[in-house]
Amino acid sequence: MSDQNPVFIPGPTNIPEVLRRACDLPTIDHRSAAFADIFVPARQAAQAVMKCETGQVVIFPATGTGAWEASISNTLSPGDRVLAARHGMFSHRWIDMCQRFGLDVEVVNETWGNPLPVAEFSRILTADTDHRIRAVLATHNETATGVTSDIAALRTALDAAGHPALLMVDGVSSIGSMDFRMEEWGVDLAVTGSQKGFMLPPGLAIVGISQKALGHIDQARLPRTFFDFRDMLNSHAAGGYPYTPPVGLLNGLACSGRMLLDEGLEAVFVRHRHIANGVRAAVDAWGLSLCAREPASRSDTVTAIMAPAGFDATAVVSRAADTYGMAFGAGLGDVAGKVFRIGHLGSLSEPMMLSGIATIEMVMADLGYPIMLGSGVAAAQRVYSRPAQRAAAA
Amino acid sequence: MSDQNPVFIPGPTNIPEVLRRACDLPTIDHRSAAFADIFVPARQAAQAVMKCETGQVVIFPATGTGAWEASISNTLSPGDRVLAARHGMFSHRWIDMCQRFGLDVEVVNETWGNPLPVAEFSRILTADTDHRIRAVLATHNETATGVTSDIAALRTALDAAGHPALLMVDGVSSIGSMDFRMEEWGVDLAVTGSQKGFMLPPGLAIVGISQKALGHIDQARLPRTFFDFRDMLNSHAAGGYPYTPPVGLLNGLACSGRMLLDEGLEAVFVRHRHIANGVRAAVDAWGLSLCAREPASRSDTVTAIMAPAGFDATAVVSRAADTYGMAFGAGLGDVAGKVFRIGHLGSLSEPMMLSGIATIEMVMADLGYPIMLGSGVAAAQRVYSRPAQRAAAA
Amino acid sequence: MSDQNPVFIPGPTNIPEVLRRACDLPTIDHRSAAFADIFVPARQAAQAVMKCETGQVVIFPATGTGAWEASISNTLSPGDRVLAARHGMFSHRWIDMCQRFGLDVEVVNETWGNPLPVAEFSRILTADTDHRIRAVLATHNETATGVTSDIAALRTALDAAGHPALLMVDGVSSIGSMDFRMEEWGVDLAVTGSQKGFMLPPGLAIVGISQKALGHIDQARLPRTFFDFRDMLNSHAAGGYPYTPPVGLLNGLACSGRMLLDEGLEAVFVRHRHIANGVRAAVDAWGLSLCAREPASRSDTVTAIMAPAGFDATAVVSRAADTYGMAFGAGLGDVAGKVFRIGHLGSLSEPMMLSGIATIEMVMADLGYPIMLGSGVAAAQRVYSRPAQRAAAA
Amino acid sequence: MSDQNPVFIPGPTNIPEVLRRACDLPTIDHRSAAFADIFVPARQAAQAVMKCETGQVVIFPATGTGAWEASISNTLSPGDRVLAARHGMFSHRWIDMCQRFGLDVEVVNETWGNPLPVAEFSRILTADTDHRIRAVLATHNETATGVTSDIAALRTALDAAGHPALLMVDGVSSIGSMDFRMEEWGVDLAVTGSQKGFMLPPGLAIVGISQKALGHIDQARLPRTFFDFRDMLNSHAAGGYPYTPPVGLLNGLACSGRMLLDEGLEAVFVRHRHIANGVRAAVDAWGLSLCAREPASRSDTVTAIMAPAGFDATAVVSRAADTYGMAFGAGLGDVAGKVFRIGHLGSLSEPMMLSGIATIEMVMADLGYPIMLGSGVAAAQRVYSRPAQRAAAA
Repeated sequence: MSDQNPVFIPGPTNIPEVLRRACDLPTIDHRSAAFADIFVPARQAAQAVMKCETGQVVIFPATGTGAWEASISNTLSPGDRVLAARHGMFSHRWIDMCQRFGLDVEVVNETWGNPLPVAEFSRILTADTDHRIRAVLATHNETATGVTSDIAALRTALDAAGHPALLMVDGVSSIGSMDFRMEEWGVDLAVTGSQKGFMLPPGLAIVGISQKALGHIDQARLPRTFFDFRDMLNSHAAGGYPYTPPVGLLNGLACSGRMLLDEGLEAVFVRHRHIANGVRAAVDAWGLSLCAREPASRSDTVTAIMAPAGFDATAVVSRAADTYGMAFGAGLGDVAGKVFRIGHLGSLSEPMMLSGIATIEMVMADLGYPIMLGSGVAAAQRVYSRPAQRAAAA
Repeated sequence: MSDQNPVFIPGPTNIPEVLRRACDLPTIDHRSAAFADIFVPARQAAQAVMKCETGQVVIFPATGTGAWEASISNTLSPGDRVLAARHGMFSHRWIDMCQRFGLDVEVVNETWGNPLPVAEFSRILTADTDHRIRAVLATHNETATGVTSDIAALRTALDAAGHPALLMVDGVSSIGSMDFRMEEWGVDLAVTGSQKGFMLPPGLAIVGISQKALGHIDQARLPRTFFDFRDMLNSHAAGGYPYTPPVGLLNGLACSGRMLLDEGLEAVFVRHRHIANGVRAAVDAWGLSLCAREPASRSDTVTAIMAPAGFDATAVVSRAADTYGMAFGAGLGDVAGKVFRIGHLGSLSEPMMLSGIATIEMVMADLGYPIMLGSGVAAAQRVYSRPAQRAAAA
Repeated sequence: MSDQNPVFIPGPTNIPEVLRRACDLPTIDHRSAAFADIFVPARQAAQAVMKCETGQVVIFPATGTGAWEASISNTLSPGDRVLAARHGMFSHRWIDMCQRFGLDVEVVNETWGNPLPVAEFSRILTADTDHRIRAVLATHNETATGVTSDIAALRTALDAAGHPALLMVDGVSSIGSMDFRMEEWGVDLAVTGSQKGFMLPPGLAIVGISQKALGHIDQARLPRTFFDFRDMLNSHAAGGYPYTPPVGLLNGLACSGRMLLDEGLEAVFVRHRHIANGVRAAVDAWGLSLCAREPASRSDTVTAIMAPAGFDATAVVSRAADTYGMAFGAGLGDVAGKVFRIGHLGSLSEPMMLSGIATIEMVMADLGYPIMLGSGVAAAQRVYSRPAQRAAAA
Repeated sequence: MSDQNPVFIPGPTNIPEVLRRACDLPTIDHRSAAFADIFVPARQAAQAVMKCETGQVVIFPATGTGAWEASISNTLSPGDRVLAARHGMFSHRWIDMCQRFGLDVEVVNETWGNPLPVAEFSRILTADTDHRIRAVLATHNETATGVTSDIAALRTALDAAGHPALLMVDGVSSIGSMDFRMEEWGVDLAVTGSQKGFMLPPGLAIVGISQKALGHIDQARLPRTFFDFRDMLNSHAAGGYPYTPPVGLLNGLACSGRMLLDEGLEAVFVRHRHIANGVRAAVDAWGLSLCAREPASRSDTVTAIMAPAGFDATAVVSRAADTYGMAFGAGLGDVAGKVFRIGHLGSLSEPMMLSGIATIEMVMADLGYPIMLGSGVAAAQRVYSRPAQRAAAA
């Protein structure tokens, strides 16, 4: 594996040098004022990126899985009913966690490759007239299938049903890369990590908590200590932590958040869509199809591609790594062996993306896939190139 | 706060440049073989440093607090009785966590500054003939008071009482710096983090689990998912993680562990004791006393110093930071305002330690403490210097 | 200009991270033994890479221009006659320097794009029966035109003429990347820098001196102090420098030299040729022609491409930088505006090279060049890809 | 040698982390606009630090020795007479260089430890009524002896004699650390490097050229190419270089210059004097004497200390390195074995300096010097500490 090639796994992303340096901080005293100078802007930036306008953000030294756990353990009690769809590896894992915590999960099984079935959720919520469902879980962007679900529509469904359930959203592979509006969509618990849209190493579990969710904390009877919102909120209010904080990563978050906000979130989303459009054009040119069935739900951060019948998708990933030193994502769970994935989130230039497309094209040709060398690259180039007149006019 | 001065907080420690570089890794695919090449030696090194010969080590992306939580939630059930002493801030916090998890904690309150009262524990264990106590908790090195407890004696007490309770030891500020023998002392759960003896940034919660403790996992009914040993042990066995691992920190751990083992653990302990002896000589020369009352329990990683009557110990810490750009530790909990702490664990040369002693000496003089400039430094120099003849003979 | 894209200028090259770290050294005492531990292997590695088996290597804190100056000022005297060809910007500049030093330069003007005219040199040397020519200057690889000259043939010509002139070779953009044999080819002064085949930042001027050239030093009457071989040789023999050495760069050289020798020089040359073959295949596919007229003289480190009639080659370079954040080389001197250059020396993976080819392809398309998107990439992919059967057999 | 200890050699200095990072730049195209964005502010900063208000600054990729050579080779012709004092190793070497360039050097030998004898220079200049002396050479701060000479007084002497000679000043170990006023003192050529007051690695030779000196360039007949001011001035005017520039170091210079100017040059000088005062207080407390005989000429960047009779000063340096991992400077030339030197220029906190003083104190004690442990530290602490009342009033 060459350390000179970009990675195209769907996170952790390539880390821009400026962020690597921000994280690589000499030790400072985390009980001193110098720490608050790092932490306060880091937390504010996370809040702004999540569009968590009236809520609170807590940042644990953990990963996205920890953020899921914190969301449920701080707001629910044993036996509580939650509604969730299983349509990818990450939605599956969250359901599994809920079951291990003794929650009563109403699972809607959906074909992997489809988004969360809003209509079915709407039906269930409307039928739940005594509001036994305490929380609705949604995976905004299923990293396993490259499918984005419609959270705004889910909020509309909740509102239409007049349902008070908490809306918990896994935004791990969307927040900071794709349109996400915690406040406007009425998301009560929004969950992400450091290693995706924020382009940092893993190690931060970031949770946005709505005012409504904050009101559930004291009633919640699931046990928690490390992940207790109350200790964190108390300490965060004083600019600190209840235990040793990961100062370097928080400095990275302050820096990353500032980068995203300086570029402008809308511009960041457009940039991700532009890069994704090139990848999708390449897939079309190869004559392959996406795991994501509906065009509207195609993810701008990760593209899962169906291998043609008779081909093992995993071989693409292993050959890319072994022969060309480049990392892509293999299929997981229900689609293991059937899809390979190109991650394209974080800081990626067009030339970087073209190197990824050109490489996976060589891999497929090596393996006898019925594709033409250069075809996908040319299609992506048509998306990425800017004829001089157009450029001059801009 | 100057970034050129060493820090003398009792962790996180100064990070040697080679370890900063080991942690500052570009993104690699954590599902590739390249990851196992990092993780397997990291885990082996942690195991060797803990002297966890026949047990298993798991490494969470979290902090020491998470390691405490994992230890209890994976081996105990609600209502289980545990025995613990409260004699410092960190033993206090672990007790608090147990209570929040619904455990029945038999607390022995001991004066802060004293070690764990082994005789009293022995009495209680002997009296517990029906073995209601399921676990005994011990803080090997109380970072708040600079006191080391005698874990070997505690094991002897357990054995003498023929008591089957699990022995859980917080080795956060001892493991990798002071003598610690998981196997020989029959420690069932040994807990540490990355930011102390391993000299890394915070972000790894490292737990050593004895074979006996492994046998308790399936019966344990406290809920856990992020901190579940079973997921970790399964994934670790395959060279990986159930979720995104902190690759850079693990690479740092592999490097740090190799450094410690190459130096030789015995040599590492002698080095820490030598540096600590200089600090203690300085305290004697100043005419001040230690928080640690018994000479045998004086910690080799942190020295807590009693301010003379009428002086606010916290002012020492804030003045050192504000005026001389150097970080020391303030008193916590029962000894807040009464002690200040000099951390001296990790990679510290004699000249670095002398700069710390010289600086805090200036601070005390500035604040009117009845000490003589140069006196503590001279005492430490007498410990550190090596008359040429002696050197020649060596 | 994105700092995430590789550069494709013909030096300085992309610097592998391990070399950036080797150069980024904290200050050490350059008069201590620690310095010799860095410098001695650095110098030995440079000697091995140059295949300077029986000569001496000196390393100045300067650039290639300084190495040229050292070569002439330490071996020649005012009025001495030297023979040189002008067939590119760098051969031109060396001639200019000789003239400024009062040497009598016999200049053979050759079309830019052609190699050094060995036959003409042979004629001149044979005719110079009284050996007035004291030195023959050759540019092994003309970075301005992407043309490699045949140094072995030049040595044969010198030998055939029985001519005692010193053979001075500018190997700045060949040594460490292309076959270079100082000893076997009878090169008396071989000149390179740190920022090409050694993949380091600029700042080292490296000169290989044959035993024969060493014998000329005391007679040479051109003035020199900073660049005096005698001071350097004396100090180098003691493991040091006559003035402050650039310790970090020398540490980088030790590391880089070891990398090249560990890979094997022959493998390094094959790797460069392989990458160059892909670039040349792309140029063919575009229907463009090279500045290098003779196939045998096509450089493996830089390719200079003729813009089609009516197109300004410089616009390719500026548009690549401004629109896609990628650096290529413009034409210099006689070929300014007529050629653009793709540098491909140093550490370049196939995916990196493909990103360069794909990008310059977009640039040409943007500017209305009659080329087809994807065509050059596909041609390079055919060179770089490895059908699985072949791979399996290997 | 521990890489955790500061160095106390009189240059290269400790490099602040922010400057190491500024120098460690990925490759950029030095022919692009991005380079000018680095170089132009770097050059402006150097000009401001030198107080070279109406002159020009050129920056070679070389060291201070190269800057000396450039100063004389660009302004003088063979046989020109220059006036210089030999009173230390660096003034000696500059004289040697002049002689090698065929200049006619009138050498005034002065005791090492004394400053440049202005009165004697004044006498010679006044007597030189036909102005055969073309240049006067002065070493502002003799790094070998820790002696600062009075350049303002030398200018007064030149003016009083109505003498038109160029005034060339070696400011290598003073510029950026001690008061230096190129314009006001009428310095025609001011010479420094990157590795002293600018706190960077070695590799830049920085020369300030007065308008008067610029007028001498075309008449100067000493040969030069690499060090030719004309090529540099032409290229610098266009924001570039006649050959490959050391981009990383220039980025470091831009950053370092900004740091110095933001702090304020006067504050930088006061800071150096304050640190030096602590060192001198320690020497007094040890009962040792300085190589610098006159209090007014004691250098604020390096202190050369006389070993007591019967002691070998070099052993101090080697023992400090071997036993305590700390670098100090040995005596050079006439004072080899008689003095050891403490460098204290660049970025040094009081605690860092105290670690140096404490360490050399241990070394001297080890070697049987008649000094008392802690005595020098206490003296320096009295200089560095700030009784709280005074601090409160400030």
